[in-house]
Amino acid sequence: MDIEEFREFGKASVDYIASYFENIRKIDVISKVEPGYLKNELPETVPLRGESWHKVLEDVDKVILPGLTHWHSPHFHAFFPTANSFPGVVGELLLSGLGSLSKDWETNPACIELEIRMMDWLGKMLGLPEEFLNESDGPGGGVIQNAASEATFLGLLCGKQRTIASQSEDQVSSKLVAYTSKESNSSVEKAGLLASVPMRLLPTDQNGSLRGRTLQAAIKKDKEAGLVPCCVVATLGTTGTCAFDNLEEIGTVCHEEGVWLHVDAAYAGAVFACPEYRHLMKGVQFADSFNFNPHKWMLVNSDCSAMWFKDTRNAEAALRVKTNLPNPSVFEPDIQHWQIPDSRRFRALKIWFVLRIYGVEGVQKHIRRQIALARFFQQLVEVDDRFEVCASSMGLVCFRVKGEDVFTRVLLDGVSKRGKIFLTPYFYREQLVVRFVICSRFTERGDILFAWREIVRVLEEQVFPCKIVVSKKRRRIRNNGTNILKVLDPSFTNIHQGINENVKVELFL
Amino acid sequence: MDIEEFREFGKASVDYIASYFENIRKIDVISKVEPGYLKNELPETVPLRGESWHKVLEDVDKVILPGLTHWHSPHFHAFFPTANSFPGVVGELLLSGLGSLSKDWETNPACIELEIRMMDWLGKMLGLPEEFLNESDGPGGGVIQNAASEATFLGLLCGKQRTIASQSEDQVSSKLVAYTSKESNSSVEKAGLLASVPMRLLPTDQNGSLRGRTLQAAIKKDKEAGLVPCCVVATLGTTGTCAFDNLEEIGTVCHEEGVWLHVDAAYAGAVFACPEYRHLMKGVQFADSFNFNPHKWMLVNSDCSAMWFKDTRNAEAALRVKTNLPNPSVFEPDIQHWQIPDSRRFRALKIWFVLRIYGVEGVQKHIRRQIALARFFQQLVEVDDRFEVCASSMGLVCFRVKGEDVFTRVLLDGVSKRGKIFLTPYFYREQLVVRFVICSRFTERGDILFAWREIVRVLEEQVFPCKIVVSKKRRRIRNNGTNILKVLDPSFTNIHQGINENVKVELFL
Repeated sequence: MDIEEFREFGKASVDYIASYFENIRKIDVISKVEPGYLKNELPETVPLRGESWHKVLEDVDKVILPGLTHWHSPHFHAFFPTANSFPGVVGELLLSGLGSLSKDWETNPACIELEIRMMDWLGKMLGLPEEFLNESDGPGGGVIQNAASEATFLGLLCGKQRTIASQSEDQVSSKLVAYTSKESNSSVEKAGLLASVPMRLLPTDQNGSLRGRTLQAAIKKDKEAGLVPCCVVATLGTTGTCAFDNLEEIGTVCHEEGVWLHVDAAYAGAVFACPEYRHLMKGVQFADSFNFNPHKWMLVNSDCSAMWFKDTRNAEAALRVKTNLPNPSVFEPDIQHWQIPDSRRFRALKIWFVLRIYGVEGVQKHIRRQIALARFFQQLVEVDDRFEVCASSMGLVCFRVKGEDVFTRVLLDGVSKRGKIFLTPYFYREQLVVRFVICSRFTERGDILFAWREIVRVLEEQVFPCKIVVSKKRRRIRNNGTNILKVLDPSFTNIHQGINENVKVELFL
Repeated sequence: MDIEEFREFGKASVDYIASYFENIRKIDVISKVEPGYLKNELPETVPLRGESWHKVLEDVDKVILPGLTHWHSPHFHAFFPTANSFPGVVGELLLSGLGSLSKDWETNPACIELEIRMMDWLGKMLGLPEEFLNESDGPGGGVIQNAASEATFLGLLCGKQRTIASQSEDQVSSKLVAYTSKESNSSVEKAGLLASVPMRLLPTDQNGSLRGRTLQAAIKKDKEAGLVPCCVVATLGTTGTCAFDNLEEIGTVCHEEGVWLHVDAAYAGAVFACPEYRHLMKGVQFADSFNFNPHKWMLVNSDCSAMWFKDTRNAEAALRVKTNLPNPSVFEPDIQHWQIPDSRRFRALKIWFVLRIYGVEGVQKHIRRQIALARFFQQLVEVDDRFEVCASSMGLVCFRVKGEDVFTRVLLDGVSKRGKIFLTPYFYREQLVVRFVICSRFTERGDILFAWREIVRVLEEQVFPCKIVVSKKRRRIRNNGTNILKVLDPSFTNIHQGINENVKVELFL
């Protein structure tokens, strides 16, 4: 492909993306394809001879689009947002096009210096303590990671390393233990697996928040058993209900115990760009590392996960090895040693694009608007007696159909099967709830009403006709007496098998 | 930014990239900026109000470009290639524009199914054993990772997990040990740090290749000391000299000892697309995991690292945790559990673009062409009596100025300071050598001649006038008797301080 063809192909693809977003409301958010749909659409091996880009772009439309879940549809309300903005997309295009990586400063001064500055821009915009910034006098600093999972793992590794270094005892690594709440993201438990440190999942209070007393008691118990606490992962904005751990209480305990505190604010961290929410990170001065994902709620396309260390020497101690091609950098900080990979893409460029083209005001407007839309949805739920709101925070509302879990299960099934909106289930306080999140930046009040009408329609057509029939050892729920969904497992984890059958409920108690 | 502005901004950026490549020979490959150059070019905080995209794109040219190292300049001969191709750039644009991530199949059927198929396309193109493929009947399979560093770490984790599971003994994890060669990439040693497993750096033979006998002896010694070998990381294409470990010998030892074998073929793996090089991976059937980076030598823009497992159940055992939003996938394989992050970008799309638009023949032509260019450069070095070739393999030639290391050091300094071509130093068999790699896909014979003339010019102007003056305890090397570069450290690791001074050599022995 020569440069002229690239110009044509690139511009045709820009147009393709533009028209994709122009028409995004016309496509169902959930794909209707069956598992294995792609198998017969593609040859089994790489074609011997190259094909024309026209054919490839046609196939994106013909083969890929039907199997796509539309994460930026205004009707996508699952998980948390994954960022997408026009400045972010063009930033990704340019950084990929220029294709300049970096290792140390010498291998790409612009990439390293822009990343350092962007991390300071972000840190100041969130109101993080100055000691986390690259420009501070001390050893603090920030860097872009691939994902929050990786940041949590690195935070835990640093805590592990610092603890081992501080102990004279042999065999201390087999006695290490770390803590988080049972409401934390599964990636925190995974970080424990990766770092070979048992991760205790502590109970929360009634609001889903980990409290200082609970942590203190767990640490005390472990220490009495001869174990060595090395890290606490606190969450600001849990995946399930967007709850905030009590950072001030937890931080005080970590400070007193000399335990590393990593803060996972993957989704909700972006909200601190709005000063009225900063009270929720009270105690952040106790954090040793802090992470949030601009690629979630701050309009920077994935991947872009921002991580700060209060003392980057801990990261170096945990991660630095002598590189094969030794050329010590003349530039400080030498951020290549604060991450897993050897080199880094020029992701700072897309942060720069987004922050300049939106400005602080644009970012704040985006966040406040999504929170307002969530409150609007919440009001719709609250005024309907058939539902109850179980939790609500930031861009998320958790609600359920009153009564048995199975009604909510049937609602989720029905909505999912129709594919007009995308919702996710969650178990909260031992009840099944629906998570409804404002994800797409295209979502407007009209889309919230669209979603609400869809939910009510499925409720009235599929949930309400259900009747619970109790027999000796099982209760059977019938939908108009005709269709039955088998729910073999009381935790309802086999829902996705269910939606491929006719609607039919049998509940084994 | 509305959709019309996005169309303009996107297309202007496509044109910017096109004209960047049209003019790439006019720009020096190494930036001339001083450390900290960006500091005063950018405000200290995010601008309050958004700016126009025109201004931002202007600033890319004004602020970023001068500080960029041009990794795709035909005069970039450092490290190994980082891939960049027009189909790859447009693939990245589209995957970023559509912005669809995936977790399990349900969250994005197209993304999961295309990734599975692309990994099979790649595996078949390289001639990997069938049992590694997703489409095979057994438990093997492949998935895209972020980086080879991550793949090595995951391979080691799997070996660790499998070994622990197979041992009845308590406390086995503190006795684990892993092996690689001293020529392996520093990321292998880092993987040992990440996984808390000591990584032995074993000596190689005269060709930089790790042999079975050496490994066998090391394992025997460790086992006699009560340690438990869990993993070997073999390299196909070392960073220093692109040497190939003897996989057949190593694999036989691993097989007999029941030790996990991970193969790191980050750069050179791509060469197996050309059948005439497959003898270099003889023994690959012994591998438990195998990794190469399409984002190095196979034209797929970073990031895109391909990793296969012979038995993916090992990856699941090492990495799988119960996710917060439980919905077991109806689709097999459930590749979300074979990686660190929770979700994945739609990177398969750019592999698809590159492989279709190049075809097998296009990829082979690219690789063979770069190898031929390296041999052409090698011939230029070989016919010049002032130089010696120390190693040569694939797209890499290692050479040095005959005599004391300091001559090669002055050569590297001089070339680096002029910034016309980018070379890197390496220590091989205790001698300083220059690594010269064919990196850019734009590099042609004329660029090789350009590089050679540059090397000879610096040799004649700066290296040859040097004389070694021996006094009692030091030897002094003078460049025309006028300029002196201080070399304080016999390993010459402070070269980058040197190049900012006048050329002047003092060698303390």
